[in-house]
Amino acid sequence: MIIDALQTSNWDRELFEELRAGGVDCVHVTVAVWESARETLSQIHRWYRWFREHDDLIVPATSAGEIVAAKKGGKTAVILGFQNSSPFEDDLGLVEVFYRLGVRVVQLTYNNQSLLGAGCYEPHDSGLTRYGKEVVRELNRLGMVVDLSHVGEQTTLDAIEFSQRPVAVTHANPKFLHDIPRNKSDKVLRALAERGGMFGCSLYPHLIGGRQVTLAQYTGMIARLVEMIGIDHVGFGSDAVRKCTPDYLNWLRMGRWTQTADFGPGSAANPGWPEWQEWFQTPADYPNLQQGLRDQGFSKEETAKIMGGNWLRFFGEVIGD
Amino acid sequence: MIIDALQTSNWDRELFEELRAGGVDCVHVTVAVWESARETLSQIHRWYRWFREHDDLIVPATSAGEIVAAKKGGKTAVILGFQNSSPFEDDLGLVEVFYRLGVRVVQLTYNNQSLLGAGCYEPHDSGLTRYGKEVVRELNRLGMVVDLSHVGEQTTLDAIEFSQRPVAVTHANPKFLHDIPRNKSDKVLRALAERGGMFGCSLYPHLIGGRQVTLAQYTGMIARLVEMIGIDHVGFGSDAVRKCTPDYLNWLRMGRWTQTADFGPGSAANPGWPEWQEWFQTPADYPNLQQGLRDQGFSKEETAKIMGGNWLRFFGEVIGD
Repeated sequence: MIIDALQTSNWDRELFEELRAGGVDCVHVTVAVWESARETLSQIHRWYRWFREHDDLIVPATSAGEIVAAKKGGKTAVILGFQNSSPFEDDLGLVEVFYRLGVRVVQLTYNNQSLLGAGCYEPHDSGLTRYGKEVVRELNRLGMVVDLSHVGEQTTLDAIEFSQRPVAVTHANPKFLHDIPRNKSDKVLRALAERGGMFGCSLYPHLIGGRQVTLAQYTGMIARLVEMIGIDHVGFGSDAVRKCTPDYLNWLRMGRWTQTADFGPGSAANPGWPEWQEWFQTPADYPNLQQGLRDQGFSKEETAKIMGGNWLRFFGEVIGD
Repeated sequence: MIIDALQTSNWDRELFEELRAGGVDCVHVTVAVWESARETLSQIHRWYRWFREHDDLIVPATSAGEIVAAKKGGKTAVILGFQNSSPFEDDLGLVEVFYRLGVRVVQLTYNNQSLLGAGCYEPHDSGLTRYGKEVVRELNRLGMVVDLSHVGEQTTLDAIEFSQRPVAVTHANPKFLHDIPRNKSDKVLRALAERGGMFGCSLYPHLIGGRQVTLAQYTGMIARLVEMIGIDHVGFGSDAVRKCTPDYLNWLRMGRWTQTADFGPGSAANPGWPEWQEWFQTPADYPNLQQGLRDQGFSKEETAKIMGGNWLRFFGEVIGD
């Protein structure tokens, strides 16, 4: 079982075939970053259409059971998710509305302050706001994953503590691998795991410290992470952005909130999409990661947990069997 | 089985109790008249909340089986519907989005020209438009009822012919009872029934010719209608507007499309909500109608068909068992 806990690709049939080539049984995909409620409806409908047009390759999933069924059928299960709370606007009722439309993962904010809390690039962290607590309570009630990947440190710690269900960082890395605001402190890593949460290690070059990082260094990070928080709380969220244009990168970074260049984990000297490391060019390279974990000394059983077993258990606990 | 194929009331617990008092096993309720997609999401969520808060009285229904189950459980099944296509805006994809949110009845337009076709008060009838055909095709594919109550004559005839599933007039009356634009011609009545459609007779005073019309005159109209189109195609759609304010009446009639008074089936001399006839003041009076049908000479079996049996069969055919 291979589960990729986040991709934000510019999807087409070729990319669905790429998932199959990599043996990816389940992928969590992004349907909103800065979009309003209305705009998100159209984003979600694109997936309804793709599910019909490519039903030989992908199927929608809203539970762990549907992920298992997809694998059995030789297809990739797709979980719809938000990287921001923008689709909820200021209306708590929209949480259930989007639940009914199939959304199962919600990141509380993307880099910036949202109505729910602070993003990882905000200089001052509001913590989880009053509305933020209401939304987390509603996500808990319905069975949707609270995602804290792009969320600020204090808001992340607040959400871990406040949530009645385990929460996730679907795609980031430990600061001990690469110390940037987008990656997570030891304190967050430990608090997350203590409450039963999951950490998805990202393959995005800017989050690992650049494409020169070797597979052995990367799996070494995983070994250290497992030692710190336990084998049951670690998985992958590649952050693959296949076929995404430079314009889309600007949309992700700048949304509608600025007219000035924002580089996220990039820089003025390196403003575009980064080149990916040799050993993980696309999700078709998941077998390389699997081999890398074995080479790092993980047992077959441990490797299976990290590749997808842990995410499957977590999804069962949070979104249901 | 008593089914009311349209109410647009200002809902609260007292009105749900009124439905129970009238023995109403299923009601189709309006969640959009002029609302945009975004506004409709919040309207729908109010029902999700009411379904939780009043789960001893009402349950959501998206199939005939759920209506039967509701009756068995002593509750009223609620079907969500639109009286206009405004929530779809110009986006065909939103048909499936609202299907997933539980909507099962869609009137193509409300009084005026919509993107799909002409309303019953338009002086020129565009017929079913290009987009209108696409929406009907999508409603057919998904299993949603095409409602033609407030729709213009030509668009109504076009939709009856174009639809691959039987269609409905959920709430209107024959022009032979009261000849106003909102009521339906013999030609429409016959075409509707020939394609397996359903006609819901309205109790709205302006559509029956005023509150002085007697129960015997009203059931006499039903006898004539049954003679014309057959016993299997007639039911009720009361058009109850319980607790609705004069402001809401203006919203229904004027939406956001005019700043000038529009009286619909009312008049400048009689601009407000009409008083209802003695024999049908509220949906709690459904037993009066039942008795009236028996007094008119309908057998027990025929009466059961008109009270709800026909609608149940129709919903099974169109939205599914």
